[in-house]
Amino acid sequence: VNDAYVYINGAIVEASRATVSVSDRGFLFGDGLFETMRVDGGVIHMLGRHLRRLSEGATILEIDLPSDDELRGALKQTLEANGADQCIARLTVTRGEGGGPGATPLSPTIVVSLRPLLQERNRSNHTALVTLSTPHLPSVTPTRIKTLSSLGFVLAAREVTRRDADEGALLTTDGLVAEGSVSNIFIIEGGMLRTAPLSLGVLPGIARGRVLELARTLGLEVLEQPFTVERLRRADECFYTNAARGVVPVGSVDGVGLGGTRGHAERFREAYFAEIANEVL
Amino acid sequence: VNDAYVYINGAIVEASRATVSVSDRGFLFGDGLFETMRVDGGVIHMLGRHLRRLSEGATILEIDLPSDDELRGALKQTLEANGADQCIARLTVTRGEGGGPGATPLSPTIVVSLRPLLQERNRSNHTALVTLSTPHLPSVTPTRIKTLSSLGFVLAAREVTRRDADEGALLTTDGLVAEGSVSNIFIIEGGMLRTAPLSLGVLPGIARGRVLELARTLGLEVLEQPFTVERLRRADECFYTNAARGVVPVGSVDGVGLGGTRGHAERFREAYFAEIANEVL
Repeated sequence: VNDAYVYINGAIVEASRATVSVSDRGFLFGDGLFETMRVDGGVIHMLGRHLRRLSEGATILEIDLPSDDELRGALKQTLEANGADQCIARLTVTRGEGGGPGATPLSPTIVVSLRPLLQERNRSNHTALVTLSTPHLPSVTPTRIKTLSSLGFVLAAREVTRRDADEGALLTTDGLVAEGSVSNIFIIEGGMLRTAPLSLGVLPGIARGRVLELARTLGLEVLEQPFTVERLRRADECFYTNAARGVVPVGSVDGVGLGGTRGHAERFREAYFAEIANEVL
Repeated sequence: VNDAYVYINGAIVEASRATVSVSDRGFLFGDGLFETMRVDGGVIHMLGRHLRRLSEGATILEIDLPSDDELRGALKQTLEANGADQCIARLTVTRGEGGGPGATPLSPTIVVSLRPLLQERNRSNHTALVTLSTPHLPSVTPTRIKTLSSLGFVLAAREVTRRDADEGALLTTDGLVAEGSVSNIFIIEGGMLRTAPLSLGVLPGIARGRVLELARTLGLEVLEQPFTVERLRRADECFYTNAARGVVPVGSVDGVGLGGTRGHAERFREAYFAEIANEVL
């Protein structure tokens, strides 16, 4: 196992003894942030981007984040203690312990834990995306940040499991496709790449950002514009992205196969993982 | 101090050792529920109603809640261990440990912790309510439940503190008064009592429910109907309610004193606390 040890506030402890106080505001109120990162060959993919997003979230929440060096050190210690080569690393930061809802504790809680990188179900072109009845809510912050108050996404993910799908699309009350339960969603139509804009309250996914950059390399025009669920179902191709799984081409939407050849989605997937391989070497 | 001991999953432990796993889903995702209850004379006020609301939330989230008897026992043990007479008791229930966002652990985590009942700042008729810029978001569930994913309310409470007010009103994007950062909000106009309906996504507060019943006894007509921020400012009287503080008459809204005599609000406050005294005796 490569998840036997956990980092908590400067110390490496056995996972079975890795605890936080019941008065930690992460536990009391979901008052904190997290990042989920992919580790390959012992290297954390796009670490700088993850730390930048975390820092932006901490600024918005007014959480006094440790320095990048300290956070990088915490991640490095955890990977080394576990001898971890390929896994998912989660960095959690809370506002600290105590206080009523509005209080400002002095010292944030920092936790790093690992979990295995599950082998993807190889459903080849059968990867099933469904549209969810769990609603997409606007973000309480000006742009969405990755907070511990993520029950809405838990309920979405539970609906995906219940419906035996691979991922689910959260829709706004206007019927627009916002994001997945654990991903951002892209469609390709007429050779153009489209994904919901951040102004719709979607998480600025790290993989999402990288895919938008790769589109230029691959010569596709990008439209960060809302699209309806009808348009999702009519798309030539569709894929979803997250830091753990990279780019995942979709075979069907709500049980109906997409019409296209999946050539673009596969090219995004290849380009994305080629880059991971480069970063590792 | 009467908060030295905490109940966790069947055991009473010292508060300094009261911890949960970093893989508890309350900590990872805000995946759980809580109730905050007022204790006077060693008696938990309106316990049955709190447990009923918790149970309704657990049904919606599909969390396998222990029996009412077990929960009552946990609360009783905690009060006895602390020799607690007057305090706030918090009952926290999470889905348990582990899993990805959509997973279903088998065994929920149950925590009971106490905190002192702070003496209310005696601002007499100076209690200041302000309207907040932190937005009121719709609930992800059909009716709002009291979940651990409460960062939106934390941000609201922090705005209240920053503005040196006593409570803040969260407004919908349509400019309607939804609820307070830690309370429900009522206005009185022309001898009628008005508060936002649950369909606006406001928490079904236990004190809110009791006040609606008391209105009948006090002979006031009740309208559970939305009202705008302008209407709040023009109201004859205003008060807010929660389980910890009961009924709190408001002196000013956004710095401007309300016109009325506060006679109705004071009557609600007296009737509410008379009942607490009865329950204790």
